[in-house]
This record gives sequence, structure tokens and C-alpha cells, in this order.
Amino acid sequence: MNNWDFSVEFVQQLYAGLNKAGVDYMEIGYKNSPKLLKGAEGAGPWRFLNDDFLRKVIPQKGSTKLSALVDVGRVDEDDILPRSESLLDLIRVACYVKDVDKALDLIQKFHDLGYETTINIMALSGVMEKELVEAFDLIKESVVDVVYIVDSYGSLDHKDMLYLIEKFKAHLPNKRLGVHTHNNMQLAFSNTLIAVDNGVEFLDASVYGMGRAAGNCPTELLVTHLKNTQYQLRPVLEVLEKLLVPLREQEEWGYLLPYMITGTLNEHPRSAMAVRASENKDAVVEFYDKLTTPEVSFPKG
Amino acid sequence: MNNWDFSVEFVQQLYAGLNKAGVDYMEIGYKNSPKLLKGAEGAGPWRFLNDDFLRKVIPQKGSTKLSALVDVGRVDEDDILPRSESLLDLIRVACYVKDVDKALDLIQKFHDLGYETTINIMALSGVMEKELVEAFDLIKESVVDVVYIVDSYGSLDHKDMLYLIEKFKAHLPNKRLGVHTHNNMQLAFSNTLIAVDNGVEFLDASVYGMGRAAGNCPTELLVTHLKNTQYQLRPVLEVLEKLLVPLREQEEWGYLLPYMITGTLNEHPRSAMAVRASENKDAVVEFYDKLTTPEVSFPKG
Repeated sequence: MNNWDFSVEFVQQLYAGLNKAGVDYMEIGYKNSPKLLKGAEGAGPWRFLNDDFLRKVIPQKGSTKLSALVDVGRVDEDDILPRSESLLDLIRVACYVKDVDKALDLIQKFHDLGYETTINIMALSGVMEKELVEAFDLIKESVVDVVYIVDSYGSLDHKDMLYLIEKFKAHLPNKRLGVHTHNNMQLAFSNTLIAVDNGVEFLDASVYGMGRAAGNCPTELLVTHLKNTQYQLRPVLEVLEKLLVPLREQEEWGYLLPYMITGTLNEHPRSAMAVRASENKDAVVEFYDKLTTPEVSFPKG
Repeated sequence: MNNWDFSVEFVQQLYAGLNKAGVDYMEIGYKNSPKLLKGAEGAGPWRFLNDDFLRKVIPQKGSTKLSALVDVGRVDEDDILPRSESLLDLIRVACYVKDVDKALDLIQKFHDLGYETTINIMALSGVMEKELVEAFDLIKESVVDVVYIVDSYGSLDHKDMLYLIEKFKAHLPNKRLGVHTHNNMQLAFSNTLIAVDNGVEFLDASVYGMGRAAGNCPTELLVTHLKNTQYQLRPVLEVLEKLLVPLREQEEWGYLLPYMITGTLNEHPRSAMAVRASENKDAVVEFYDKLTTPEVSFPKG
């Protein structure tokens, strides 16, 4: 929601803080290709990570590994160096369920280059059982290391989460699982805890929950609450005080009613983001009526 | 957190909205005695509810019942009219575990006057098992209708909540249960859902989560999410847009880092409220250090 406009110092301080906090991975940006993604002019350098640039930002790697996200159809595989020549450790591939085959082709290539890999099927809450099972059959036979359960719209509760975890476990007994939540219904953290309790190992979070629309599971809550871990809260508080609380005064994310409404309706938040960017940002009744009233269409002529 | 300074119109509109939404009860204030609670000068009329005043505010009762809270030691039982002469339906008695006997004496009197009653043992997360079991023995034999599980400090997660529910059920098989949560760790709503799933029937919530410090479980989330109920979201959105969103611009509550810190440390939020009222309201590292560094005391002389 800030168009990837983080300063180099911001990213360096965040990386240092996450290292001190014992966080395992930091996702440092997207590795899509500017040639394949139009309309992204003006985005910060974290939108299209460059390995040389990254080496200047992080001259000395700590124990926190680095990951990057790519989207099927937006990444140029020739942009990806072998892991031995890159600072990145993990490449995560996001796709819709219909593109799982393409995602797995990419993952095979990244795997052969030495990277850890994940597959993140987006918008799970709108995927039919049959499609999902077909996707699982492909994933099970692939080299991917981690399969993510993604609550794109922040619409899942603990029962939905348990249902999905059991389904993923049953169909993918040979894969590690991850979880990525959104906070539209104030359930991002609790759904992540449910996932931990049921064997999910990769837990996505962002400091202060920063992220598009309602944002994500807050790192500080996970770090302080998870038992039997070495995570430290204090370095995350340092980052919060220095970087994230000031940023929240510039940029808006979190529990806001239009996002709650798209969450409860199990919809993409784009309509809610448009409302928050408009003059009527608090007109939630009108917004709700728009989303819940069937459109009447008058045939022309 | 606004010193009970709601206008009569605010309360009337809120009551009308909750009726339309199908909410079962509205807690309209405290029924403590001004004679027994010093230092409350300047508080709004909802701090010390008066039956005549209430009758002017709500000339026509809807289907939403009305409740009031009292604290052991702060209520004058002679202030309480018989239910047949009052607009109130339910009186809730809050106490610490050491005062359960006194709370049950009051409850017997309110019960004899015709009211539904609840007992709310505060600060449960700091109560020893033995004390709690002794309290249960008294409660089991009493006339109280509903026993509340109260997460005063917003420090409980779903496993804690399940543990408490099982304990309450085992010791109080003849009582209905309620739940009252705080949102310090963003778990107020999810803990309430866990409670519903496990047979808890009385669910405390406040519109937009308004309440002291981190606030409570948001009414709008419960109303929209609970399955097999007649609750309506739209009237709550009307109240949110008209009353609560504007109020949130005047008064502060919700997920703020000092409240997260007292929540994770299982402490009363008063120190965090002091920080938020100070000039250094965002100095969270210093605040955390203060709360986590053992005090060094130098003996005098």
C-alpha cells in the first residue's frame, strides 16, 4: 500500500531488527520482471528486486534468510541467478489454482537453481473442492518444499482453517505447510495460532500487520506469544517504534470497516480500498448496500 | 474511556440500532452508588444509572433487554427497585475471586427482586486453581443464572479459553456460561468464537470494540459471523457510521502497542493507559523495559 516505496535504511533496519528478534525469514520483495508487469512505473526497488542492488543493501547477511515472491506470468526465469550467486534463499510462487501447473514448472527451475521453494494458491476460499484436489495431485509429485494455505480475503475462521489444514495434510503428507492470513475479521493472528497448533510450520507475518487493506498477522504478536521458541519481542518493538508506527501515520492499513465488509462477504478488498481512497471513506452503509444488492441490468434496445 | 459521557441521543440511537440488529441485551451502564464510589465526579449519567432518568431515555422498550453492571462494595442495594418497576432485566455483578461470597449475597437479593443475574469474576488469569474451585463450590449452590469467563487483561489464547471453559463446565454443570474478552492481543473476537463453539451462550461485545484500553470483542464481527442466528449487520453498520466511527476520532481505544505489551505480560492495562495519556505515547521500548526489568530497591539508612 505504499507502492514498495521503502527507503534502503528502512529495509536495512528492519532486516537488522528481525535478525535480533530471531525471525527465520524476511521477504524482501518481489522478483517479478518489469518487462512482464505493466503499469508499475514509479514503484520502489522492492517491486523488482535486483541482485546487485540487494547486495548493496545487505552487505552482510545475518541468520535471517531472505525470500522473494514471484507471480506466475510476471517473472522472467532468466532473471533468477543460481542461489549460490544470490542473497535469496527462498522463492515463493503465488498463483491461482488454474495455474498450479505453470507454478510447478517455475518451481522446478528454481529448485534446480538451489532455492527453497513454496507454492501459494491464492483465493482458496473461492476454489471448488474438485479443482483443489486436482492441484494437490500435481503438487504432491513436485519438488516444492512448502505448500501455503492462503486466506486471501481474510474471510476464514478457525473452523475453516482447521478444515483446510486437515485437507492439505491428507492430500500432501510429504509436504511442509505454511499459512498466510489477512486481518479483515481480526482473525489473522488467531488463525495463525490455530495453524501452529496443527502442525503448520511456515507462518507469514508482517511487523504491525502492515499490508494491503486490513493487513496481515502482526509479527510482534507471534514473536511474543509462540511457546518454546527463541524469538525476542524487544527488537521487534524497536523496529515498531522507529519504523512502523511512524509509517502507519502516513499510510493506512488494518481493521477498517470496508475491509471487514469485504472479509465477511468473502470478496477481494479492491472495492473497499477504492472507498477508503475516496471522499466517502466512512460511508459504510452505502458501501455495504452496494455489495449486497443484486445489480439490476436493463437489456438495451 | 470517555468517563461515561455519552449523550442521551447517542444512547437512544444505539439502543434503536441494537434492537434492529436483533442483539439480545444492551448494557446501558453501571448501577453503582455515587455515595460508595469516590472520585467519580464529572462522570456521565451512565455511571450511576437512575431508574427515572432511564425511563425518559427509553420511553418504549424494544426486544433488546437492558442490563446494568454493579461492583461488589460499590452498589447500594437499596438503590435497586423490583424488576417490575425498573427497565432493567439483568444485573451483572463483577468481583474479584476473594469477594465471590459477597457477590452471591447481592445476587440473591437481585434474584429475589426478579432480575436475571450474572457473576463476573475478574482477573481470572491470575487466580489460583484452588481459589477458583472454592469459588465454584459457592456459585454452584447459588441462584445466579450465568457465570462469566472474563479475560480482564486480554492475555488468553484459544487454548487458555478452552481450558477455562472445560473447567467451568465441569464444576458448574447447572449454570449457563458467558464470556467477556479484551482485545490486547487481537484475540477478543476469536476467543469469543471459541467460546460459542463450546457451548458458551452469553457473549459480551461492544460496537467497534469500544472499551477501555484495547477494547473488547466488536459487536459487528459477532453479528455478521455467527451462523444460525437472526442477527443483522446493517443496523450495526448504521450505528458505526453515525456514532462509533466519529467517536473513535475523539477517543482512543483498540490495538495499540502498550496494550499489547500489558496483554502479553498478563498485567492490568493501567500502566499502558498512562503511557498513552503521556507525551511519550509511542515510546514502547522504554515502556517494555520498565515492565520487564526487576526493580532494584535500595534499603534506606
